[in-house]
Amino acid sequence: MSAPVVTSDEAVDPLLAPLLAGDRRALAQAITLIESTRSDHRVRADALLAAVLPHTGRSVRLGITGVPGVGKSTLIERFGLSLLDRGRSLAVLAIDPSSKRGGGSILGDKTRMEELSRRREAFIRPSPAGATLGGVARRTRETMLLVEAAGFDTVIVETVGVGQSETAVSDMVDMFIVLLLPAGGDDLQGIKRGVIELADLIVVNKADGDLKATAQRSAADYQHALRMLRSPTAGWTPEVTTSSAQTGEGVTAIWDVVERFNAAVGEKGIQKRRAEQARAWMWNEVGETLLAELKKHPEVRRLVGGLEREVEAGRATPAAAARTMLEAFHGR
Amino acid sequence: MSAPVVTSDEAVDPLLAPLLAGDRRALAQAITLIESTRSDHRVRADALLAAVLPHTGRSVRLGITGVPGVGKSTLIERFGLSLLDRGRSLAVLAIDPSSKRGGGSILGDKTRMEELSRRREAFIRPSPAGATLGGVARRTRETMLLVEAAGFDTVIVETVGVGQSETAVSDMVDMFIVLLLPAGGDDLQGIKRGVIELADLIVVNKADGDLKATAQRSAADYQHALRMLRSPTAGWTPEVTTSSAQTGEGVTAIWDVVERFNAAVGEKGIQKRRAEQARAWMWNEVGETLLAELKKHPEVRRLVGGLEREVEAGRATPAAAARTMLEAFHGR
Repeated sequence: MSAPVVTSDEAVDPLLAPLLAGDRRALAQAITLIESTRSDHRVRADALLAAVLPHTGRSVRLGITGVPGVGKSTLIERFGLSLLDRGRSLAVLAIDPSSKRGGGSILGDKTRMEELSRRREAFIRPSPAGATLGGVARRTRETMLLVEAAGFDTVIVETVGVGQSETAVSDMVDMFIVLLLPAGGDDLQGIKRGVIELADLIVVNKADGDLKATAQRSAADYQHALRMLRSPTAGWTPEVTTSSAQTGEGVTAIWDVVERFNAAVGEKGIQKRRAEQARAWMWNEVGETLLAELKKHPEVRRLVGGLEREVEAGRATPAAAARTMLEAFHGR
Repeated sequence: MSAPVVTSDEAVDPLLAPLLAGDRRALAQAITLIESTRSDHRVRADALLAAVLPHTGRSVRLGITGVPGVGKSTLIERFGLSLLDRGRSLAVLAIDPSSKRGGGSILGDKTRMEELSRRREAFIRPSPAGATLGGVARRTRETMLLVEAAGFDTVIVETVGVGQSETAVSDMVDMFIVLLLPAGGDDLQGIKRGVIELADLIVVNKADGDLKATAQRSAADYQHALRMLRSPTAGWTPEVTTSSAQTGEGVTAIWDVVERFNAAVGEKGIQKRRAEQARAWMWNEVGETLLAELKKHPEVRRLVGGLEREVEAGRATPAAAARTMLEAFHGR
């Protein structure tokens, strides 16, 4: 096969060697580079990513979602520390499309994982800022490649579940974990559509004190509900556990589930999922870029508001409006 | 607002008047016209659709999905006859992206709804043939407009649930009904991902004879599972009923649920959903057309296989491969 994606005669990036050696400063600089919107930075970032690519893919990639208040940071910190105790290393990345540069994004305040952030074997990176989920997700995917190249053997991508961010996270990890609160009766109603169906593992957190019994009942309910749904992962039946990020009960056991998941799905299953994710990501980038080009076209910009109103009011068929928009784009 | 989508000086289509008068032959010819792939037919079809548009939107639009063997045809026939008894009229359309022209598509054999198909107040149309779900869905959406213009006040769009066809159907109807079989224990596992979450109403069919008790237990299980999920429709809490297409028990009661649904969601709620559906359909058409144009480009066709392999094997980043493809498309 031909079609070289990146020419090989480019100068080797000075960040490459220290990055591959696990130098944290080089890693931080490389991430800043790929997060930059300057076009010369983008060219350099792409060359660097192409160079690190052979050194990526050797980590366990976990996604974790949970609404604010579920105890996500505390749980990730405890879980992370238990991984370090097992001799593993951990990078925690985040996706929050609502975060603004310098604002109160998730993980923006590292003190929320104070102990973990002080450890040499751990690396914590807040969500990149960005207007679109697509942009934020792309930078997090690329950051994942960088931390893998720097030698981290476990990656957690966390999200608070704004918009479609759970889908974005589950599309870039091997295993997806949903953190839920203990709840009874009608409170169960209202979990975001689709999230339960993405779960390889549901963890009902805050299973301590007065809430312990409720948490166990919730876990049984979720277990029951999962039976209605097909597993998101071939070879694996989703599980439900309880945990207490406060007392630590059930936290280290999460890694046991991860190991069973990896054994059940197998090396080949993981590789297949990653290949599908990469392929879907490529087509997604192509589709989003084409749509962005169309939306930037002056004639389309002039027409789009009116066409949307006509279509919404039932005065034009969507197909006819789409054709008008495409003709404007193509200058016909 | 300006931007006329269709010029008004075109000759009035001879099919328009008989179609609006409810002439079945004109309706059948109009559907054949919109299903045609000939470009002169397409121009005529678009003008006809624009002309009928003010006469559409006055039906109750229902979607029904169910796997082969669930008793869908028998149930739709019985349900349909009960609607005619209530003084309503009914058009039954189908979406089956796997159907081939002349092959054994759903509804291809009208004898499956023999009694209903003989009634003047009913109209049954098999799935249009087509290679892509998008194409099949577009023709069914347009057929829905035609049957509404011809005066049918109830439309059922049915699907067997191949690929993403349930989503396509739920994106074009007011209320989505999922038919399920009675099942116990582990059999519940394996319902297609996402389908339960689309349901405004779940009907457990075959609640007769030996299966009656199992059906009622299944209904309770599904009711329980639905509590975990957010309703697809604002103002409505999804319900679960049982039915027997054989004995007729529970079949006419489905319309009572439909009426409660319409009352709960309200005229404004239905209009809002339809406006969102139309808008999403327009953007979907635009996106799919752009992607199809890219895939037809000779240079893209030369590159695409190799790029997909590189990306799947982890030898190129998806972003870099996407850029290469877009550069080829734009001739850079």
